[in-house]
Amino acid sequence: MTVYGYSSSGNCHKLRLMLTQLRREFRWVEIDSTSGGTRTPEYLAKNPNGKVPMIEADDGRIMTESNAILCWLAEDTAFWSGDAWQRAQALSWMFFEQYSHEPYIAVARFIRGWTPLDSPRRADLPKLRERGQLALAVMELHLQQHPWFSGGDYGVADIALFAYTDVADEGGFDLAPYPAIRDWLLRVRRTPNFIAMPLPPVEAASRIALPD
Amino acid sequence: MTVYGYSSSGNCHKLRLMLTQLRREFRWVEIDSTSGGTRTPEYLAKNPNGKVPMIEADDGRIMTESNAILCWLAEDTAFWSGDAWQRAQALSWMFFEQYSHEPYIAVARFIRGWTPLDSPRRADLPKLRERGQLALAVMELHLQQHPWFSGGDYGVADIALFAYTDVADEGGFDLAPYPAIRDWLLRVRRTPNFIAMPLPPVEAASRIALPD
Repeated sequence: MTVYGYSSSGNCHKLRLMLTQLRREFRWVEIDSTSGGTRTPEYLAKNPNGKVPMIEADDGRIMTESNAILCWLAEDTAFWSGDAWQRAQALSWMFFEQYSHEPYIAVARFIRGWTPLDSPRRADLPKLRERGQLALAVMELHLQQHPWFSGGDYGVADIALFAYTDVADEGGFDLAPYPAIRDWLLRVRRTPNFIAMPLPPVEAASRIALPD
Repeated sequence: MTVYGYSSSGNCHKLRLMLTQLRREFRWVEIDSTSGGTRTPEYLAKNPNGKVPMIEADDGRIMTESNAILCWLAEDTAFWSGDAWQRAQALSWMFFEQYSHEPYIAVARFIRGWTPLDSPRRADLPKLRERGQLALAVMELHLQQHPWFSGGDYGVADIALFAYTDVADEGGFDLAPYPAIRDWLLRVRRTPNFIAMPLPPVEAASRIALPD
């Protein structure tokens, strides 16, 4: 299987993390989505929506959308277990991640690290910070009562939510007010064969180090 | 089962459509999310994310996120069938719907119908229109080759994508350039026990009738 992804993208790292934890073999093709890598005719022919990650099976079949790929990889494993209700609850958190979490927490990080310091998009940061904090508060409330987002055990929804929550500070989010989230991040980091997302590229890291 | 929903919301109508097509009994509690109905302490106690739709099982268990609820309802039915790959492909379209389609096509409709005519949010419409058209183009390309989004047959992903595509004109989208989408909308409308979304409330309808 081939994964097309940008290593500094949380959506892409989700796949690297789960594949590593499942001890599955894969080939990684680095696609820099921040500099047009998903807009080439070759890439668009495979994924007309022009986003990473994407997987290509050995028979050439394509699948897109990080969280759908996670579900496919997790089928018949402990990462997406339980009855239909429990599996749908994991999906519920994964839809929450894509609709109420990633568009604020990941996008704030992207703007801080991957846009010029004079980008007009930086004016969006206060609003993104506010909406992202609402998502963190919803997660905190859940984690005060439950150890994981995927039912009784660590699994698909934890991987989906971990990716950008673990680097929320790079978007300017302070996790100090969310002790249950901080504990959960530590629990995820201690799962077998855990692999962290690489540090951002130097130019992005130097922008992230600056105040807004 | 009780569904908490706002009848003019496509996300909520997805559930009414599938439940009706599955001939499942349900109680509908109307929650006007456009006037604070999801922000009451009672509602937030059940869904801290403050969104509709939400379902409450007879034993009091709660599930949120329209597309996760669709998957739960569709489990072991023809609406979410095929092998693991095909089921994950349906999920892929459902994540596409929530990330690349709804935030533009549904939000443009909401702004046009449910915000005052002098709302500053109306300045977002051209950008939303542009991004929504990209989503429609991706759908059109798929529908040129495949009759449905859920694998071989009509199912969960078709219901998820139908909801707001069918009322895209209310957001100012012209479907004339997308003949495959228009044919697919007709096919969905001809499925057994189909039920259309009710017309918007009078005030929203009168705003929608005006040019931007």
